[in-house]
Amino acid sequence: MPGDWDPSPAHSMPSTFSAEAYFATQPPPPLLAQEIEGVKEFVARQAAQNRNVVLVTSGGTTVPLELNVVRFLDNFSAGTRGATSAEYFLKAGYAVIFMHRQFSLQPFSRHYSHSTNPFLDFLTVEDSDGTVGITPAKRADADLLAVLTAYKRVQAAGTLHTLTFVTVDDYLWLLRAVAQALSVLRRRAMYYLAAAVSDFFLPRQKLSEHKIQSGKGSLHIEMDQVPKVLKPLVEEWTRDGFIVSFKLETDERLLIPKARAALERYGHQVVIGNDLHTRKSWLRIAADGAAAIHAKEIEEDIVSELLRRHEAWIASA
Amino acid sequence: MPGDWDPSPAHSMPSTFSAEAYFATQPPPPLLAQEIEGVKEFVARQAAQNRNVVLVTSGGTTVPLELNVVRFLDNFSAGTRGATSAEYFLKAGYAVIFMHRQFSLQPFSRHYSHSTNPFLDFLTVEDSDGTVGITPAKRADADLLAVLTAYKRVQAAGTLHTLTFVTVDDYLWLLRAVAQALSVLRRRAMYYLAAAVSDFFLPRQKLSEHKIQSGKGSLHIEMDQVPKVLKPLVEEWTRDGFIVSFKLETDERLLIPKARAALERYGHQVVIGNDLHTRKSWLRIAADGAAAIHAKEIEEDIVSELLRRHEAWIASA
Repeated sequence: MPGDWDPSPAHSMPSTFSAEAYFATQPPPPLLAQEIEGVKEFVARQAAQNRNVVLVTSGGTTVPLELNVVRFLDNFSAGTRGATSAEYFLKAGYAVIFMHRQFSLQPFSRHYSHSTNPFLDFLTVEDSDGTVGITPAKRADADLLAVLTAYKRVQAAGTLHTLTFVTVDDYLWLLRAVAQALSVLRRRAMYYLAAAVSDFFLPRQKLSEHKIQSGKGSLHIEMDQVPKVLKPLVEEWTRDGFIVSFKLETDERLLIPKARAALERYGHQVVIGNDLHTRKSWLRIAADGAAAIHAKEIEEDIVSELLRRHEAWIASA
Repeated sequence: MPGDWDPSPAHSMPSTFSAEAYFATQPPPPLLAQEIEGVKEFVARQAAQNRNVVLVTSGGTTVPLELNVVRFLDNFSAGTRGATSAEYFLKAGYAVIFMHRQFSLQPFSRHYSHSTNPFLDFLTVEDSDGTVGITPAKRADADLLAVLTAYKRVQAAGTLHTLTFVTVDDYLWLLRAVAQALSVLRRRAMYYLAAAVSDFFLPRQKLSEHKIQSGKGSLHIEMDQVPKVLKPLVEEWTRDGFIVSFKLETDERLLIPKARAALERYGHQVVIGNDLHTRKSWLRIAADGAAAIHAKEIEEDIVSELLRRHEAWIASA
């Protein structure tokens, strides 16, 4: 019953923040400056080696409902798309800044879920000397060897830099600062915004200090809209970067028109429209034209399509 | 500003569900019957071996805000307390039904977070023959050997049974069914309810089918209260089970009085009161008397205190 969500602005105080107003009034995460130092060093090292760099954002953001966080609003995302795509970008020779929700999936380790593929099952306590060993089956496991080899190669090359966020506030501050640090690469930088970002947040001034008591009846939460950051990302934070956004809908009829409208409104390079029902197997890229993509691991095709377009973008400078 | 949450029942339709009304109107998770078959077999096997069984619930529950879930309300919990406690119960010879939030921490694997202690770093691709090997440092790592040995022992004994939930609905249906299956053990069953369960939910009839459009202003969500299940758990679902509940507060002044009130109201055996600020190092058990516990890994002391009390409970039959 949509009536449970009342999108009318009737009750509210100022409820739509511009990006500018947002950053002027909300506090930054405490370690931001330090983290951005690390990003700048990473970007400089990649620039010196003439590598393209892609920022991959991944996983959902939370909206804490209390200052001492007990309850929060969350967006569904295990981080599969971001983690998988990051592997393909790395394989293609890109350096990757992987900015992900804490505890969401990560490139390489995503293959070894503690629930479905627990790594302790790979290990043995050796009868001979009581040391840790590998089960014979895993010692020659082709999948494990492939993942491990790719992982070691990336570690040796130093082409993966990981950042974490939890709240939508962490995400917004980090996105702006990373984009600004990456903008020195101009067209060689790609932004692959696969994180599932909340549309709403609670400004710091409205947060309850303690756990909200549950009382006896129903519960009302009044939230404000998260500022739209694609516009300032395109116009202010980056310079000539290749920007890819995602549009997730459950109502298929809204998907393509909304993807096209976003492209027109923000003037970036690619929108990937995503139907929640069939997200693993069906996907469209709407940019100049719309390309339908069908594949087993869709991220491989998305990434190769984007590499082609990014190359053209760099060449058209 | 607490005004953002309005706990008054003024607007609402029927907003407080009794447990009975809840189970009469909300649909069960599709695989429930099948999962309970597995639990019954596990319990029968432990009973035949004369083992005590503890149900450990762990992690937070979600409240989906849409039928095709994009957004949900969540409770903060990585699942550390439940996963750690389960290890100590297993060590003490209990069988454990570990009912946890999907992707929250699990006994044994909790020591190897993909972020802070990634297991791919333990492995090598051997130069000699290209197989998977272990780094020399990890081969003789005492912590890894201890965890691995305990894990293999539990696997061999078959004393750990894992169940997962995501939503508060999954949790409630599963809790009732598991408790009913465990009740055959009478006093030998313990219930260690460490999961962080939402106080609120959205009844199926009120869920929006599609992703709610964000509109232009503030956002209102109206939810109903989750039924209190401790009372039916004590009075109907279990028989003479040893029941331990947790009370989490950020306001220390509310903690002890609320823990005591819960014990009086529900008539179970132990409430563990938990101050969110100091949860790792400070904790009280309020039952007959109140015991203050201080320890490095608090779960070890909680569990040994509970084992003592459970033994007395069984003896007092």
